[in-house]
Amino acid sequence: MKRKGLVQIYTGEGKGKTTAAVGLAARALGHGLKVCYISFHKDPRKWLCGEIKALKKLGADIYSLARSHPCFDREVSRAALRKECLDGIGFIKKLAGKKGYDLLILDEINICLRDGFLREKELLGLIADKPAKLEIVLTGRGAGGKIIKAADLVTETKKVKHPHDSGIPARRGIEY
Amino acid sequence: MKRKGLVQIYTGEGKGKTTAAVGLAARALGHGLKVCYISFHKDPRKWLCGEIKALKKLGADIYSLARSHPCFDREVSRAALRKECLDGIGFIKKLAGKKGYDLLILDEINICLRDGFLREKELLGLIADKPAKLEIVLTGRGAGGKIIKAADLVTETKKVKHPHDSGIPARRGIEY
Repeated sequence: MKRKGLVQIYTGEGKGKTTAAVGLAARALGHGLKVCYISFHKDPRKWLCGEIKALKKLGADIYSLARSHPCFDREVSRAALRKECLDGIGFIKKLAGKKGYDLLILDEINICLRDGFLREKELLGLIADKPAKLEIVLTGRGAGGKIIKAADLVTETKKVKHPHDSGIPARRGIEY
Repeated sequence: MKRKGLVQIYTGEGKGKTTAAVGLAARALGHGLKVCYISFHKDPRKWLCGEIKALKKLGADIYSLARSHPCFDREVSRAALRKECLDGIGFIKKLAGKKGYDLLILDEINICLRDGFLREKELLGLIADKPAKLEIVLTGRGAGGKIIKAADLVTETKKVKHPHDSGIPARRGIEY
């Protein structure tokens, strides 16, 4: 039977969105599926996440696009980020078309939408044009109405408790 | 600075609890931390999860305890499961005491509590006696009051949409 890829979203305020996407990637790689992991607004030169090392070792293709964000870089231009995100969509469409991936993670892409660097219709276009077998996973806070509507699986992580609230900073190997 | 391990819980009805725990394990392994992944109520001889293959490849120690459950095996005795879970707690205490793990995942252990195979005070005892640097992650639906109170980080996954509801069965490489 031919696999039909769905669209999954992990959104909400709780810990576990990127983390679940990493788990999905590891699980798929464990079964020998072909995985591409693309993050937005994360700069691997400044903040090397353990998940990237692990997923590379398991055989995933890894990219990081639109690496900056006004939250942690006041110098970055919104127009430049807009262009990087838009170019990113084009890059992903081409890549997904030729690489035969089973699973594509777009980590924090919901933030691109929430903060106006991508338009809903641009992401909807990517989803509409995806190869039939490709499963797409979108993570990040603030996933919007039409994207939720286009998805098959949506989990909202609710923060019941988080150590950040007690002043504990992000920890290497646990939060990144 | 000496690492202080916390207690994390992933509970709720949404997809992403075990998946987030797998992501946490992969991230920690990516940074060279020492990880132990123990599942309850999952039989790797019948249902080989991709995450187990991936985490083994990354260097985690893997165990599966109390492998059966009345939900998928009507023959299994509740008394036997109770004993396996209780013995499991003893096993985990010894293991955690001597192995120097940074991260211990107890996948679906909340189900052991919810379904009466473990008592809350037994799991609380395990948490109280844990080595200081050990981070413990508990997953599964129905995490109870005192366990939530004992935890530092709690995420409740809320199911907004799930393909099971449209009759799509669990898929190899995606759900397991």
